Amino acid sequence: MKKTELKKDGLSRRQVVIGTGALAAGAALTQFSGMLKPAMAKGGLTEKWPWPYKKLDPTKTAEIAYHEWYRVFCGGAVINSVFSQLSESVGEPYTSFPNDAFVFLEGGQVGWGTICGSTAGANIVANVIIGPRIAGSPVAHQIVNDIMEWYSEEELPIYIPKDPKLKENPKTTVSDSPLCHISVGRWMKATGNSLKSKERKDRCARVAASTAYRLVELLNDWKDGKYEPTSDYSASKEFGITAQPNCMDCHGDDVPEPPM
Amino acid sequence: MKKTELKKDGLSRRQVVIGTGALAAGAALTQFSGMLKPAMAKGGLTEKWPWPYKKLDPTKTAEIAYHEWYRVFCGGAVINSVFSQLSESVGEPYTSFPNDAFVFLEGGQVGWGTICGSTAGANIVANVIIGPRIAGSPVAHQIVNDIMEWYSEEELPIYIPKDPKLKENPKTTVSDSPLCHISVGRWMKATGNSLKSKERKDRCARVAASTAYRLVELLNDWKDGKYEPTSDYSASKEFGITAQPNCMDCHGDDVPEPPM
Repeated sequence: MKKTELKKDGLSRRQVVIGTGALAAGAALTQFSGMLKPAMAKGGLTEKWPWPYKKLDPTKTAEIAYHEWYRVFCGGAVINSVFSQLSESVGEPYTSFPNDAFVFLEGGQVGWGTICGSTAGANIVANVIIGPRIAGSPVAHQIVNDIMEWYSEEELPIYIPKDPKLKENPKTTVSDSPLCHISVGRWMKATGNSLKSKERKDRCARVAASTAYRLVELLNDWKDGKYEPTSDYSASKEFGITAQPNCMDCHGDDVPEPPM
Repeated sequence: MKKTELKKDGLSRRQVVIGTGALAAGAALTQFSGMLKPAMAKGGLTEKWPWPYKKLDPTKTAEIAYHEWYRVFCGGAVINSVFSQLSESVGEPYTSFPNDAFVFLEGGQVGWGTICGSTAGANIVANVIIGPRIAGSPVAHQIVNDIMEWYSEEELPIYIPKDPKLKENPKTTVSDSPLCHISVGRWMKATGNSLKSKERKDRCARVAASTAYRLVELLNDWKDGKYEPTSDYSASKEFGITAQPNCMDCHGDDVPEPPM
């Protein structure tokens, strides 16, 4: 499966709609900057970035994520799909990372419907490997932005497992949001399936697989030195508040003006 | 500072409003259950739970979190406030955890306004120490539920640092949500301060400190064998979808009925 198959047109829908290209690296990072000092070295391996990374096969990673969903749900599945392979191919520091602790990302953190565990898991993986922006590279921060926008704008689930538990491919929906509540809710509304249905569970397993696939594409691009941000979104610049770009979804026509 | 000072009345407002007590341990955990197998042991220290825990001083932890906010923001601050101390008092496996990787939790994940980094950080800490529910104990899962509800219902920020960067104590607000966008937005609306103001930054540093304080109270209770869940919230049971309990905040009077 080539990138274009998962990413479709190489441009996000938002970029097409708004008509902007991706900003130069780092330009979107200034929203909270101006007060950061470098991290204090702990002397261990784990806070020296980047961690050693060997390129992964996106399809193999997606397959692991799909099946792991049925054991550790969305966040644990995405984290395990990458770190289980790197524990074998690289070893430490990956073998010391407590992957299964992240089961709680399920359902937008124990069912509260906040950020989808697949995106939360992908964000953790990118930052644990590449390191936070205060450690010198903006790439992990940018990949989080890319993943959040891709997840919000893509028809999901897009990855089709080789041997899925449900043979019929689920209807795809666009969430317009990285929130579990909205992503799952829109899909439930479009399909008439309940939260507890096997169809909803398989849909979410495939969303985890799709997200793992996209994450590995971005990590491999970074490893090859050809990563470029696909998103230029900065809520603080555009809206003066931390936010998703879908203001009217909740606010309707009455979007408040934050104090500036 | 006694627990009652931070927790106020020992009961959450929601419990008072709804008139229910906390459910028996584990009762709220069934929303996604029925398909889980035990975690596969990796052979390392990090996926054997619980990690060794030595009780921490809530005030000292809150002080660390407050000052760390100005280096690594909300999520990194809460994680570092606990793990930096346990790295000293316990050592491994805490010294191998990449605390600073979690800077990206800032602003609800690089500014997208999803889950507040203070709660996301607290949730990670509880689960890394106690372990996921699939490893045998429901307590970390329950503490996440407690933290999410406490954060949503408490007047925040409640912790007053010993030597704050801004001497005037900020106005407190109730977010009714664990989302950064809503928590920060309600506070900005109530105070007229912008996202980039020093007042907003100090407010969020104090929210991180307040959350770290509450987290350590819960962890210490668990260590003493006297932990009891304070929240019985289960969105899947109450609403048939992953969700916060504040449906009408976004939906108004037109709350959709999910397929059941």
